[in-house]
Amino acid sequence: MASEKPLAAVTCTAPVNIAVIKYWGKRDEELVLPINSSLSVTLHQDQLKTTTTAVISKDFTEDRIWLNGREEDVGQPRLQACLREIRCLARKRRNSRDGDPLPSSLSCKVHVASVNNFPTAAGLASSAAGYACLAYTLARVYGVESDLSEVARRGSGSACRSLYGGFVEWQMGEQADGKDSIARQVAPESHWPELRVLILVSAEKKLTGSTVGMRASVETSPLLRFRAESVVPARMAEMARCIRERDFPSFAQLTMKDSNQFHATCLDTFPPISYLNAISWRIIHLVHRFNAHHGDTKVAYTFDAGPNAVIFTLDDTVAEFVAAVWHGFPPGSNGDTFLKGLQVRPAPLSAELQAALAMEPTPGGVKYIIVTQVGPGPQILDDPCAHLLGPDGLPKPAA
Amino acid sequence: MASEKPLAAVTCTAPVNIAVIKYWGKRDEELVLPINSSLSVTLHQDQLKTTTTAVISKDFTEDRIWLNGREEDVGQPRLQACLREIRCLARKRRNSRDGDPLPSSLSCKVHVASVNNFPTAAGLASSAAGYACLAYTLARVYGVESDLSEVARRGSGSACRSLYGGFVEWQMGEQADGKDSIARQVAPESHWPELRVLILVSAEKKLTGSTVGMRASVETSPLLRFRAESVVPARMAEMARCIRERDFPSFAQLTMKDSNQFHATCLDTFPPISYLNAISWRIIHLVHRFNAHHGDTKVAYTFDAGPNAVIFTLDDTVAEFVAAVWHGFPPGSNGDTFLKGLQVRPAPLSAELQAALAMEPTPGGVKYIIVTQVGPGPQILDDPCAHLLGPDGLPKPAA
Repeated sequence: MASEKPLAAVTCTAPVNIAVIKYWGKRDEELVLPINSSLSVTLHQDQLKTTTTAVISKDFTEDRIWLNGREEDVGQPRLQACLREIRCLARKRRNSRDGDPLPSSLSCKVHVASVNNFPTAAGLASSAAGYACLAYTLARVYGVESDLSEVARRGSGSACRSLYGGFVEWQMGEQADGKDSIARQVAPESHWPELRVLILVSAEKKLTGSTVGMRASVETSPLLRFRAESVVPARMAEMARCIRERDFPSFAQLTMKDSNQFHATCLDTFPPISYLNAISWRIIHLVHRFNAHHGDTKVAYTFDAGPNAVIFTLDDTVAEFVAAVWHGFPPGSNGDTFLKGLQVRPAPLSAELQAALAMEPTPGGVKYIIVTQVGPGPQILDDPCAHLLGPDGLPKPAA
Repeated sequence: MASEKPLAAVTCTAPVNIAVIKYWGKRDEELVLPINSSLSVTLHQDQLKTTTTAVISKDFTEDRIWLNGREEDVGQPRLQACLREIRCLARKRRNSRDGDPLPSSLSCKVHVASVNNFPTAAGLASSAAGYACLAYTLARVYGVESDLSEVARRGSGSACRSLYGGFVEWQMGEQADGKDSIARQVAPESHWPELRVLILVSAEKKLTGSTVGMRASVETSPLLRFRAESVVPARMAEMARCIRERDFPSFAQLTMKDSNQFHATCLDTFPPISYLNAISWRIIHLVHRFNAHHGDTKVAYTFDAGPNAVIFTLDDTVAEFVAAVWHGFPPGSNGDTFLKGLQVRPAPLSAELQAALAMEPTPGGVKYIIVTQVGPGPQILDDPCAHLLGPDGLPKPAA
């Protein structure tokens, strides 16, 4: 297909985030407004990221999107909400700044391509990174400079937290139109350099999607409303304090308690929802026994709407904890690919710790571990080679 | 050992009860006062009962107790509390009625023997039947006629609900001394003759005892307090209505919701407690799919502090539900002992229902099913042959 030079092509990357105070439940499904504030840690893009290219051209006759190389229906409501929202912001900016006639970009259709460097189905909040990256990339290509919380949020609520690096809160807001439901950085990624994050991938499928799950919880769980109104506000303040003061034991305990409470509200949903499986519970027990052995909270788990554990610990504990996981879930022939991401120096498991864990090993229970750390927010890639779409606005053939 | 004729020998039986509004958490550990009221169904003693013999004699030099044929430490605090309480009631009765001098029975030591007709470790609230039977039997032998809620409760909270047949509520009470924390029959066993109860025994060991578990929940779960104060009172009233009106679908839904909420508060405990295992979850899913297939709530599950499901249904649904369980958890060589208790006529599983269950069978996941129904409260056995202790006050040799 012959084509003119595109008006603009931009490629950005955005990170995955893991909530330590959980978001579960919308007060407005259309605007994606939550029933409580939440707080997350942005993971480093060296290990987990979405890359998105957006290209606009007068030649394009329709908006199109490719996810991980496959064209998807651009008409799906959440995607449409993001596109509508970004074009609305672009229009506002033009009107407020110079009263120029509609710049040609605004009338252009857009082609978008997006890829993850991690398996989508691993339950790793890929939609958060994906919609944050979409919002960030579209903003650049359409020249929008305002807060992008709403654009990202309309795609996937937690996506607004992936717009910043470090530690990020999503303030639930109070307004009916959601204008004050925005993400804000609590501390930058440089704030707590010793913090490490381990993703223990045990299964790749979740049974109940989070949109459906949280709707059922809002409709049926008496405990969820109480949590949102009476528990979370104090926890948000306490979590911000833990981060500010780099108080790991308190950070870790609150992280675990909040994960457990979120899953408790899933169990209080009718019919009940269970995202934790037998392996999840083995990891929960392993973490508590590891901490009890040390007489100190050195490791925390958190689980989103899926069975995979995300572990927080400090750099000086990673090697020993990995040895404990290796003992509890010995890899089979995949021992050489069991650890991905940041280097972990091998460490022996002491006989005392092994005894304290009191675990019958479950071979293969954990498929692999991604070792990562806190990272920065979305980035623009300047190198044109990074573009996922060619000058014709179609996905580049895989190299 | 030669011995005089005992002053009195009494043998009674008492039933197991299953809570449909759950008791979890004490406001007074010493007096065993709960943080919320609860409501239970008394199971029929033809299938599940405790039998207890109490003998008093001037010859006895100390209180002694045998449980399931093995002598146990009579000094354990809960047992001591029951003995103290019953003797206190006996003393009060004497004082209030005739001012007689201390009858000789009150100064006598007691020998007690107790047996269950079901495995103690099956997680079947054996302590409830056991302490109810102890309270009831001691009351007879010491001539106490007042309310026995406190005696039974001091042994095990839920034991007070086993003092009555049918449907029983344990009113939490408000007084600090617990005098108004008593059990009361909501409806007799004859009220709802179609109701059936199936106990699906899948495992025989629980990891966290309920005394320890509920203490941890009271101390650490924000959701538990909310449940006790703000959810249970309305549920007690609604459950009483469901029973009064024999409204099975509402009874069943509330039973499931309350079981789930109890387990949610366990998960909100720190460290979290999980009494449900993978088999429990398979049964939960099976019940919801069974009901969805029928477009009607025909079956309910409830789980206490252990993984075994207790199922409520009506007599016309038992055969089909048993066929569904048989399909989901096919017995191995024990097919002929898989069903215990009330007779169940064999029923085929329709292809439609089998498809709706969408279950990969888990052979042996359920070890056996006890089929029973609502039953009466404690009974006195008149036949002296029923005594578990001989004239010498020692356990009769097994026949």
